[in-house]
Amino acid sequence: MRGKVAVIGVGMIPFGELFEKGLETMAQEAYINCLKGVDKGIDPKEIKAAWFGQWSGGLIGQGTQGGSGLASMIGQMEIPITRVENGCPTGSDTFRNACLGVASGVYEVTLALGAEKMRDKPGVESLVAAGGGTGAGMGMHPSWMLGGGGPSIQALYATRQMYELGCTMEDYARVAVLNHHNGVSCPYAHYRFEVTVERVLNSPVVCWPLHLLDCCPQTDGAAAALLCRADVAKKYTDKPVYVLGSNIGMDHGNLWDKHNFIEMLSTIRAARGAFEMGGVKPGDVDFAELHDCFTNTELMNIEDIGFCPKGEAHKLLREGQFDRNARLPINPSGGLKAHGHPIAATGLGQICEVFWQLREEADERQVKIKNGIGLQHNVGGPGFGVSGVNILSRTP
Amino acid sequence: MRGKVAVIGVGMIPFGELFEKGLETMAQEAYINCLKGVDKGIDPKEIKAAWFGQWSGGLIGQGTQGGSGLASMIGQMEIPITRVENGCPTGSDTFRNACLGVASGVYEVTLALGAEKMRDKPGVESLVAAGGGTGAGMGMHPSWMLGGGGPSIQALYATRQMYELGCTMEDYARVAVLNHHNGVSCPYAHYRFEVTVERVLNSPVVCWPLHLLDCCPQTDGAAAALLCRADVAKKYTDKPVYVLGSNIGMDHGNLWDKHNFIEMLSTIRAARGAFEMGGVKPGDVDFAELHDCFTNTELMNIEDIGFCPKGEAHKLLREGQFDRNARLPINPSGGLKAHGHPIAATGLGQICEVFWQLREEADERQVKIKNGIGLQHNVGGPGFGVSGVNILSRTP
Repeated sequence: MRGKVAVIGVGMIPFGELFEKGLETMAQEAYINCLKGVDKGIDPKEIKAAWFGQWSGGLIGQGTQGGSGLASMIGQMEIPITRVENGCPTGSDTFRNACLGVASGVYEVTLALGAEKMRDKPGVESLVAAGGGTGAGMGMHPSWMLGGGGPSIQALYATRQMYELGCTMEDYARVAVLNHHNGVSCPYAHYRFEVTVERVLNSPVVCWPLHLLDCCPQTDGAAAALLCRADVAKKYTDKPVYVLGSNIGMDHGNLWDKHNFIEMLSTIRAARGAFEMGGVKPGDVDFAELHDCFTNTELMNIEDIGFCPKGEAHKLLREGQFDRNARLPINPSGGLKAHGHPIAATGLGQICEVFWQLREEADERQVKIKNGIGLQHNVGGPGFGVSGVNILSRTP
Repeated sequence: MRGKVAVIGVGMIPFGELFEKGLETMAQEAYINCLKGVDKGIDPKEIKAAWFGQWSGGLIGQGTQGGSGLASMIGQMEIPITRVENGCPTGSDTFRNACLGVASGVYEVTLALGAEKMRDKPGVESLVAAGGGTGAGMGMHPSWMLGGGGPSIQALYATRQMYELGCTMEDYARVAVLNHHNGVSCPYAHYRFEVTVERVLNSPVVCWPLHLLDCCPQTDGAAAALLCRADVAKKYTDKPVYVLGSNIGMDHGNLWDKHNFIEMLSTIRAARGAFEMGGVKPGDVDFAELHDCFTNTELMNIEDIGFCPKGEAHKLLREGQFDRNARLPINPSGGLKAHGHPIAATGLGQICEVFWQLREEADERQVKIKNGIGLQHNVGGPGFGVSGVNILSRTP
């Protein structure tokens, strides 16, 4: 796929507890923002197919089964629309499928849109309690995870990371401190306040060793991207961003099938394939938006993607090497920790940030662009058995 | 896409009330049958990506959210797997996305697999009562269809078809008679018994004018297809079947947004796009597997796809023109009426039948192959707002 597909515009809405907005409104706003994000403009009729990321719709009676929900929402009745659901990486995979649609030669322009309501789900509030990610316990096969949700599974990883790799609860808290700091200057973030290590460690324990402020919030949101054939991208913008690699990696959902609890094969596989496809390596990446649903997860992801050897991420974090102005900025947007995690919207929101950063349009959160390559990553799904990695570049 | 993608093998399991088989077992058996269906054999490692059709998993606690469920089931941990959900055409669209994956040039061989449990859903039996399709009332947006399920929506169409087009309840019953007759000789069909017009009309009314025997049964099942680049297909079989056109059409889910109740824009749009892509027309098609979730729906589909003008299908049916040995055999397999409708498996089961028919391997249900072109169709999703059409051919 390297360089055959270009992103020509992106758009999202400020994530948050949007009790005043339904799924439809959020999707419409992200869509309109995405259309507006195409520098030279685009006629909606030029969009030839769409992929709709939606995780929870069928799960909790919110509707939008199938693609026709999005068709009605955005007034696109004449194009094929596929609903993609792939756990927490639904946004990553929605983007990937829209890329494949363009690469196939069948559709010149495609839309990837993800939208998710996480906060107003009548009757299932107990399942989406504070701490984030607990909703991920819903709808899964009863033999998987023994009913465990996001925090309880990640706590198993977090304790093992501490035991084997020498990282500490303070290190986890430092991830929160960094990402909250970055989020303060991001107008799309749900949480825009600073935290300290002490505040994180003094917040209630959700599932030891993870505190409330180690967990991303429960958040509503929507985000979208428009893709087209690289050879016609300049029709829409003078600054297209190209897709180098796009991949999804799998692992067993069952915890008893995991090979260990300090790394995730889903991420390792997704990253390996995406780097191979793109013909680049982790060292070529200028910055990354990684899936920090929990603070320990971010450290694991940094290692699993290959940015540093296993067990080194917390040391580099202590040295400030993931800060916005450092060698490898991680989550310059503030990540899930600041934005929250509206499942299908999350990955596409990260794509928006990567697009803006690569075009140097990220205002005060702008990182330094050297090689012109940014990376987006999600991990989740049943037992964190699905991961998505997309690598974008300023050059094809 | 015309001719760029080939089907190199298919496999399914006999559909039925499979209380003895879980989703995993069904998926595994369909996968193994599909591997065995590749004439010259295939190493599972040659499969580079998969799309997993699954409609109800997230809806009713059966699990298999995301692609990792299938990864574990079939032991394919090293490839990307996307879950596709698009209402009743989930199988059609799963196939389409696997085609796009090949056409993109990224994956040489892809798998499309759909599996669905419809019969053992603890706690929701009242939603899947006799009559078929009532499960389709679940999980939808509360503003859609006022809670109506498959039979009640189709009854609105069926009455209007009778009023405007002059067809009768006897015509609907004739569809059941034909499809049950065809199903008797299909080893994969759930119902393998003949019915008469009288028996259909004397069966209980589910939703007037639709009787129990106008409705497809509630059925479990799984089906799969393997696809590859047309230029390497001969490596796997001397008789590949090529994909000419593959499309999904949308319409509003809301009934109050429907333009009328005698045709479905989703099918009209899906068919138009698929024929355009394939460079063929309805008259070129030798036979079709159409979505007869209800008997009136089959008549509507025949017209909407363009096989005859609106209002003519019931007349052609009376003349026997859709019989297996006639000009345009419809549902030579027995269709949904005989097979049942395990949502995500349905479309892929139809693909199996089209593949076998085109290769003249359909035993006593074999139709006469003239142009070497067969068509597969699904319609459904919220308010029957999604339709899928795939056109396959013996020549690229």
